[in-house]
Amino acid sequence: MLFSRIVTRAASTHARILERGLALSSQRGLDGVTLGVLADRVGISKSGLFAHFKSKDDVQIELLDYSSQLSGSHIIEPAMSEPDGLPRLRAVVRNWFGWAPRSGLPGGCPVAAGMFEFDDVESPVRDKIAAIEAEWRLFLCNLVRRAVELGQLRENLEVEQFVWELNGIYLAHHTSQRFLRSPDADQRAAAAFDALVERSLRVGKNRKTKDSIRRRGKSRAG
Amino acid sequence: MLFSRIVTRAASTHARILERGLALSSQRGLDGVTLGVLADRVGISKSGLFAHFKSKDDVQIELLDYSSQLSGSHIIEPAMSEPDGLPRLRAVVRNWFGWAPRSGLPGGCPVAAGMFEFDDVESPVRDKIAAIEAEWRLFLCNLVRRAVELGQLRENLEVEQFVWELNGIYLAHHTSQRFLRSPDADQRAAAAFDALVERSLRVGKNRKTKDSIRRRGKSRAG
Repeated sequence: MLFSRIVTRAASTHARILERGLALSSQRGLDGVTLGVLADRVGISKSGLFAHFKSKDDVQIELLDYSSQLSGSHIIEPAMSEPDGLPRLRAVVRNWFGWAPRSGLPGGCPVAAGMFEFDDVESPVRDKIAAIEAEWRLFLCNLVRRAVELGQLRENLEVEQFVWELNGIYLAHHTSQRFLRSPDADQRAAAAFDALVERSLRVGKNRKTKDSIRRRGKSRAG
Repeated sequence: MLFSRIVTRAASTHARILERGLALSSQRGLDGVTLGVLADRVGISKSGLFAHFKSKDDVQIELLDYSSQLSGSHIIEPAMSEPDGLPRLRAVVRNWFGWAPRSGLPGGCPVAAGMFEFDDVESPVRDKIAAIEAEWRLFLCNLVRRAVELGQLRENLEVEQFVWELNGIYLAHHTSQRFLRSPDADQRAAAAFDALVERSLRVGKNRKTKDSIRRRGKSRAG
């Protein structure tokens, strides 16, 4: 009984560390999660923290995993009920832009910020961010590819380029919403995404003249 | 004589602090420029640093000014010999993407990284980044507006939206080049920028059918 109570308490302390740590990292960046400040926020001693994590890297890596789980439950899960292909892609994008504040975090997306924070640093934390980014990019590519297979997006679409540009819209939305605190961030991002989709639609779905088809093909090649 | 030598030495120490500090901030972010590490890199004592700067904020703000000067000399100056309008815009964009490593910095753009580092922090450093960003955005908007006036880009172009999307391409290029170390970062960014310009060209310059003009207008409104 006593042991199980201790285990439960340890588990809930661990969960509390992750929760407070993620909030902190969303505001101050992963490197802003110093063990001293984190221990303070959780209300335990620094040596108490070391009972849960071996090092600062360890904390940051677990925070990234936790962030990834949280974003998945806010972005991917609710989109899976949408029809396969373009509707699901649209739902994922809608849930992705601004997911961090919508999920209750006080700041921005720790992975997006981490790509600027750890770009010139070699560390296991950098490797973790790279792994999450690669998985996410693959997920987006698969969604776009599915929309191509279903004939919603055009056959000769450069899927990686589409996702590369989509990532740029996400980052612009992030700086616009979080840094500039611009009230039109959502609207600008939606217009940019609509334009990206519009020029990726299957030819003939929205364009009829041979002339525009030819020039469209040319413009993509350039 | 002695005094002037001291003044010269002080000025050159100040310049050295800025130079080393900017290199450090481009690799580790502005908050990575701790006074201890900076003093080490410059080869002076921490109290020696305080002879030049009142506080860490002070250092960061001067570094941002210095970064702004450096980027201006790499991005804007060489573009001014290009013809007004679209050619100059293209030259600025070409010089902007990847300017930091090309100017000799060992890391990325301190302002881009700062927009993620300081998004949820209130400080004079944040205000400085915001001021630089606003000035840069205005400069880009004016370039785009000039291309509209000259009839190169279409009259009903939403200039702010164009620059918003251009900023997204820059950020995607930054993560692609610096974080992912992707060999195709330049090519992806060029393709994205070309697509943005292509759909902003003056109607009739590259599109002839009334049908495509009508649909193009519609797609922009959506």
